[in-house]
Amino acid sequence: MASPSSTQTQSRSPEIRKDPVNNRWVIFSPARAKRPTDFKAKSPQNPNSSSSCPFCIGNEHECAPEIFRVPPDPKSDWKIRVIQNLYPALSRDIGCKKDGDPDAEMRCTGDLGRVVTGFGFHDVVIESPVHSVQLQDLEPREVGEVLLACKKRIEQIKEYDLIKYVQVFKNHGASAGASMSHSHSQLLALPVIPPTISARINSTKEYFDQTGKCCLCEVQPKDLQIDVTTHFISIVPFAATFPFEIWIIPRNHSSHFHELDNEKAVDLGGLLKLTLRKISVQLNNPPFNFMIQTAPLQAIDTQLAYIHWFLQIVPQLAGVGGFEIGTGCYINPVFSEDAAKVMQEVNVPK
Amino acid sequence: MASPSSTQTQSRSPEIRKDPVNNRWVIFSPARAKRPTDFKAKSPQNPNSSSSCPFCIGNEHECAPEIFRVPPDPKSDWKIRVIQNLYPALSRDIGCKKDGDPDAEMRCTGDLGRVVTGFGFHDVVIESPVHSVQLQDLEPREVGEVLLACKKRIEQIKEYDLIKYVQVFKNHGASAGASMSHSHSQLLALPVIPPTISARINSTKEYFDQTGKCCLCEVQPKDLQIDVTTHFISIVPFAATFPFEIWIIPRNHSSHFHELDNEKAVDLGGLLKLTLRKISVQLNNPPFNFMIQTAPLQAIDTQLAYIHWFLQIVPQLAGVGGFEIGTGCYINPVFSEDAAKVMQEVNVPK
Repeated sequence: MASPSSTQTQSRSPEIRKDPVNNRWVIFSPARAKRPTDFKAKSPQNPNSSSSCPFCIGNEHECAPEIFRVPPDPKSDWKIRVIQNLYPALSRDIGCKKDGDPDAEMRCTGDLGRVVTGFGFHDVVIESPVHSVQLQDLEPREVGEVLLACKKRIEQIKEYDLIKYVQVFKNHGASAGASMSHSHSQLLALPVIPPTISARINSTKEYFDQTGKCCLCEVQPKDLQIDVTTHFISIVPFAATFPFEIWIIPRNHSSHFHELDNEKAVDLGGLLKLTLRKISVQLNNPPFNFMIQTAPLQAIDTQLAYIHWFLQIVPQLAGVGGFEIGTGCYINPVFSEDAAKVMQEVNVPK
Repeated sequence: MASPSSTQTQSRSPEIRKDPVNNRWVIFSPARAKRPTDFKAKSPQNPNSSSSCPFCIGNEHECAPEIFRVPPDPKSDWKIRVIQNLYPALSRDIGCKKDGDPDAEMRCTGDLGRVVTGFGFHDVVIESPVHSVQLQDLEPREVGEVLLACKKRIEQIKEYDLIKYVQVFKNHGASAGASMSHSHSQLLALPVIPPTISARINSTKEYFDQTGKCCLCEVQPKDLQIDVTTHFISIVPFAATFPFEIWIIPRNHSSHFHELDNEKAVDLGGLLKLTLRKISVQLNNPPFNFMIQTAPLQAIDTQLAYIHWFLQIVPQLAGVGGFEIGTGCYINPVFSEDAAKVMQEVNVPK
């Protein structure tokens, strides 16, 4: 276990950092922590219970309808299934025409609010037929296949003009929001551009206007880098919102996650697997979320110059309180360079 | 227990609502809930442990330095103490001159970030000398005294030009971020304007520019109202981010919480007490947060026309997952008008 000296960390004054991607202030406050490595999850996950899991192979009839499977042959055993969410946050059954449906347009409700009909898609990607297999247990090529299944589903959804943004995300562990322990990711396709995405676009535009560069194409400082592969780099962002937050960024400019090709998917699969294993080893198999931060489906060419997609991984190590809810400002007790050092030094067992 | 019919709730389609205060989209998704009243907290709070609590009367020497107490006589027993936080998120010991200290100014760190020295105040308001007394157990006048202690501390802090915003907040219950069970609130005074506050100002300005009115001065729809007192109204906001989120709003326009006078403090104290008791009865004593949403200390006159302070109460009933972290968009399984109905119908024991 890598263990940066506590003295080094504790002697630092708090800093408030802002990064140009999210335009968000983060308070780095080492007085509230001991050492970076003290941020282990309190206890391991509950063991998986595989009895009566609808995501397990053989229980397909207990699930909402299947959208597609990998491999596609319905008679062979599947490796990945993309299905509808049984409790969707949005409904595919209203305003579902592919060209603009007036029912799904915005309407105003008096002075105090605006409403958009809740049209959208909420799908689940079952990452393995076997209950006990986690994403990080798969081979790089197999993790790549999960990513390519997400890409394929996005390409289907983008035929619907009403859908503005597709959020791909994974909740691992109950306290990270997972209601099923069988390994899965989700896609939520929205008829609006969510606030974090708007803020990211505005902020990276500002950086681009000032410098002529995409801020995620810039060379990342060595002390924030964790791993580099042919096509991707993993870093702790300078103004990480959460302790041990990690971003995996394409090294060459790319705006849409769904531009991922087969070769890059395997490369990303390997780096995602390695990163999740590092987090598991160093932080005691914590609950975590990951989110694919990509461009709106209908982003225009001028925007594509400064929107650079990335995969954001957030271990769930600290709760959120009234300060964060009230201000949108987060307190991170681990400086980014200390978190990166811990992740650089970890040995992942073969 | 009030119990709106589940049929009524389940038959509704999801809606995506935006409110003009926070400029934030919220997905209302009844398919993910059963009935509004099913949103009870899973289990009551852990019983308070009063052994060796530094906030209890008699243990003052275990705390960080006191700033002031109520009543002020150091020889009499106190009812309220305002003290420094022993683990402050920001430091009062850097850049602490009252006039602009160059050390605390913003500096740039290369291309990828900006840094502000972490100067600020992080204080604790101990709301009662007795460990087992919660804020809602106090008399309205006593709750008012707690609010006036917050006001007094803000008025002291606003002498520091470097401080831009003071966030008053309360975490009640471990899963709402409270590390101490003895009833207390906190103030965090920041040298930056946090993102939620900037977004709120921009959004209420837009509404004001369009309508000539402050959006929180507008008459609130009856079906969202809970209680009305001489000076305040409690509502569930039309686009509530969280299930059973409640706002207590001054009925007459006021931008800064610290404009609160003694009479209004008692009135607000009574409504806050009533609202917390309603939440406790209807939702099984859940963990909760409250936040005072006010104007930046140095807000200019033109801004004051559309900034209207309010107290935001959020019961902690559902966790946050990758979708919310990734998008800043929340899924609320309880329509605001259904939540308001539950709160209108509750009987609070005398």
